[in-house]
Amino acid sequence: MLDINSTGQDLTIEDVREAHERIKPYIHNTPVLTSSYLDGLSGASLFFKCENFQKAGAFKVRGASNAVFGLSDEQAKNGVATHSSGNHALSLSYAAGRRGIPCHVVMPRTAPQAKKDAVKGYGGIITECEPSTTSREATFAKVQEETGAEFVHPYNDPRVIAGQATCSLELLEQVKDLDIVVAPIGGGGMISGTCLTLSNLAPHVKIYAAEPEQADDAMRSFKAGHIIADDAPVTVADGLKVPLKENTWHFVSQFVEDVLTASEQEIIDAMKLTWQRMKIVMEPSCAVPLAVILKNPDVFAGKRVGVIVTGGNVDLDKLPWIKG
Amino acid sequence: MLDINSTGQDLTIEDVREAHERIKPYIHNTPVLTSSYLDGLSGASLFFKCENFQKAGAFKVRGASNAVFGLSDEQAKNGVATHSSGNHALSLSYAAGRRGIPCHVVMPRTAPQAKKDAVKGYGGIITECEPSTTSREATFAKVQEETGAEFVHPYNDPRVIAGQATCSLELLEQVKDLDIVVAPIGGGGMISGTCLTLSNLAPHVKIYAAEPEQADDAMRSFKAGHIIADDAPVTVADGLKVPLKENTWHFVSQFVEDVLTASEQEIIDAMKLTWQRMKIVMEPSCAVPLAVILKNPDVFAGKRVGVIVTGGNVDLDKLPWIKG
Repeated sequence: MLDINSTGQDLTIEDVREAHERIKPYIHNTPVLTSSYLDGLSGASLFFKCENFQKAGAFKVRGASNAVFGLSDEQAKNGVATHSSGNHALSLSYAAGRRGIPCHVVMPRTAPQAKKDAVKGYGGIITECEPSTTSREATFAKVQEETGAEFVHPYNDPRVIAGQATCSLELLEQVKDLDIVVAPIGGGGMISGTCLTLSNLAPHVKIYAAEPEQADDAMRSFKAGHIIADDAPVTVADGLKVPLKENTWHFVSQFVEDVLTASEQEIIDAMKLTWQRMKIVMEPSCAVPLAVILKNPDVFAGKRVGVIVTGGNVDLDKLPWIKG
Repeated sequence: MLDINSTGQDLTIEDVREAHERIKPYIHNTPVLTSSYLDGLSGASLFFKCENFQKAGAFKVRGASNAVFGLSDEQAKNGVATHSSGNHALSLSYAAGRRGIPCHVVMPRTAPQAKKDAVKGYGGIITECEPSTTSREATFAKVQEETGAEFVHPYNDPRVIAGQATCSLELLEQVKDLDIVVAPIGGGGMISGTCLTLSNLAPHVKIYAAEPEQADDAMRSFKAGHIIADDAPVTVADGLKVPLKENTWHFVSQFVEDVLTASEQEIIDAMKLTWQRMKIVMEPSCAVPLAVILKNPDVFAGKRVGVIVTGGNVDLDKLPWIKG
């Protein structure tokens, strides 16, 4: 079993299979949806892996569950901890709740009340910090010291990457003869998991990462050959603002075919189009793959393309195409 | 094969099986989704049959396809016609397009442009009328006379009812041991189809119809023992404003356990709740069943309940919980 000292390089396909067995009782094998309308529009055959229907509303529950249920009783006894105001916080709270251990979440006091309520709804224990990196790190260190909880990073953790990798394990069973898989890229957890599975089981399938133009640090890292981290990117795709770290860079630098970007308007248009035609609620982050597919017919047309729809936790009172 | 002279009383389960074979190439066998959150909230086990993922975005494509593909070449040669500004117009246009025959749709000139565009997008030929029953009937008579097209009523047509009945045929295969099925009621096409299938194949399953308080003509008809038609009900559930007719009354009066109603706010709350927790886009009409389930725990708690989610064609620019 992987531990906190493992790195991305240590990961094997056996870790993915083990993760899948471990987390199966706590996750959905999410459905794959298709849309003849979007196929017509893109010229491709698109297969949407709907992680917006996942437990806790996002793929992140795969990695969080793998980390939580992979702990020994001794390691688990003080619970788990993380700093996140997004889907990882929800997912880790959900997984910890299922195991019956505490989950400590450090969140900025300025985070939306709806997000705080959602974390509490899954049983997470929130400690608020000021909205700065310094305060977050100091607060998190204090929480960890006081509780002795096991830190589970949102993406820079091999146990988390192995968990996310189970998504494409299912996709390969659900859809035959894929040519390409596209997933959004933020910190790179989902893309790394996708690389881990496909490079082992279907190395001919090309992997594209989709990123907002306004948070294109992964694209610039990919071109430069080393990690470039942005300070505070601003994009509607709020799940994709975080930078790559060493464990995800390992996969992105080796196995990703290209990082493609889309503008804010292209992302919003693709998001609305999916709601309209596929009747699914998904986050702006999940619309980035469709946006780059529609923008790059030279890459995607005529191909069988798996699209990871990463999550569905949206503030329904503030939709990006409705001016408030 | 049923023809235009058949009535609801002539329908048998064989008509449903024939309809299913006939329309299978043109429809989706839609998935059934569950939500542990909504199960917790209702105290019931809910199985959502997701016709919002259906072709043309609604269950109505089942009945429309059965009518269109059941026509002889002679009957079909002049195409089909209907008056509707909703999902039936879309569905009939879709089905006619698949058969390669024209579909004439009479719509009020005041109908939203988005609806007109959607019908045209599926190949429907629109003739506009004034927004009154007199004008609609006169215009429709003229269109029918000029084109010789076969009239397919949105719901008061046994061919359409047999088509809608295929939805619960699939549901019975997908979910075992149902105690109850709930569907919204407007003109009664879906409820009648549900009655047709369940009264034959699973007569122990109770059927509840869900209706907006502000358009409660089916409830009042049910209590009175004869059809009561409202003139112009006003409700957010705009698919449910039409009255029962003789072919649907046949089923509602015989096989429905009860008609339960919900207020506008209860419908909107249930709609938003479904979008939030199930991550699916559905119409206000589809939220009425969940609203009545949450309102009547004495009826539904502890039961295994099938819920027909009838369609997903919503104006995403005007959501009922966002004040414009």
